[in-house]
Amino acid sequence: MGGATGSKRVPRAVREQQMLDAGVRAFARSGYQNASMDDIAELAGVSKPLVYLYLNSKEELFTACIRREAAALVTAVRAAVERDAQLWSGLSGFFAHAAEHPEGWTLLHVQARTHGQPYAREVAAMRAEIVEFVTQLIGAAAREHARGAARARTLAGTEVSGLAHALVGAAESLADWAGDGRAGGHSAQEAAATLMNFAWAGLGNLLQGTGWSPDRVG
Amino acid sequence: MGGATGSKRVPRAVREQQMLDAGVRAFARSGYQNASMDDIAELAGVSKPLVYLYLNSKEELFTACIRREAAALVTAVRAAVERDAQLWSGLSGFFAHAAEHPEGWTLLHVQARTHGQPYAREVAAMRAEIVEFVTQLIGAAAREHARGAARARTLAGTEVSGLAHALVGAAESLADWAGDGRAGGHSAQEAAATLMNFAWAGLGNLLQGTGWSPDRVG
Repeated sequence: MGGATGSKRVPRAVREQQMLDAGVRAFARSGYQNASMDDIAELAGVSKPLVYLYLNSKEELFTACIRREAAALVTAVRAAVERDAQLWSGLSGFFAHAAEHPEGWTLLHVQARTHGQPYAREVAAMRAEIVEFVTQLIGAAAREHARGAARARTLAGTEVSGLAHALVGAAESLADWAGDGRAGGHSAQEAAATLMNFAWAGLGNLLQGTGWSPDRVG
Repeated sequence: MGGATGSKRVPRAVREQQMLDAGVRAFARSGYQNASMDDIAELAGVSKPLVYLYLNSKEELFTACIRREAAALVTAVRAAVERDAQLWSGLSGFFAHAAEHPEGWTLLHVQARTHGQPYAREVAAMRAEIVEFVTQLIGAAAREHARGAARARTLAGTEVSGLAHALVGAAESLADWAGDGRAGGHSAQEAAATLMNFAWAGLGNLLQGTGWSPDRVG
């Protein structure tokens, strides 16, 4: 690709990524309805007919943007966990990716969910994949803990699944909070640490068989 | 209202509530686009012109349904907390209300968020109110703890706010999970207890100054 700066020389795959970059930015900033194909073509530095030639319609461009950003998020979380198979690594990876790709996160968490079922379903499928992944991580942590501890409690499958749903919901909410400036400049790492304070201490207690119960806080 | 069973005798306020009941049910079951004003009139046991006379349009009916269900949820959480000002009570109240009003919860958490900005904004305003309320509860719990404990740590405002966002996100996610049958019949109380295991144990550790840190899980 070296030297391919003339617009005629850029390969289709590269052009498409530039159009998706422009789409993500425009949809995240202006919303799906307000973002125009004119804006997107201009942001991408191409003609509007070329955008239609490559991506067919605004609907298909939106879907392609959602799929790319969802795949990038899932890949980032998986890559972070592959280093050491720790929940903490996955959370850090998630918050770091959301912080580094604020427009991608807005596209997935706000735009894709507020413009009807086909788009919401794309995001729901990605979310289910992440919940399943977190369920496996919690299950693995619980088994590892059970090997090391004398009086460890086994977590039921539904309990692990519930904890995974709680953790993913908390992470989404914290990423929004950290992303929109209300967090007073809290970093992605701080958001991850805040959540781990919730999750790990609670999970650790559960595994020790000393879970919280209503009696304990009067 | 005793004996006012003939359709002509029912007061307007009562009729409107019946129409909203029907709207919540139809929107939650069929989705906003697929639910028709014919269905809603039939469910409410009134004529379609009467629905239009009272609620003007499908859009206004949808908005009125969202507002009523949002107000009911916020009221339920506030009422639960007023008993003893405990976070646990608020969470129990939230999960119990969501479990008792599954269609209202679906309307707020799924339908209202997937059909464009005006509706999504209604729900965002309700959510902000609940986050603010939970922030106050966590702040109060922290101050109470600080009075009783020798070496308690003060939580920064942004830390409390982050915890509140995490907790609300976790609660939303768990309510969806508990509501859609995947939880294997877990009750609202069990969902609340699962979340308290996360939240309270983690918050308790934070307040003791023994928050989780990456070093502690290798």
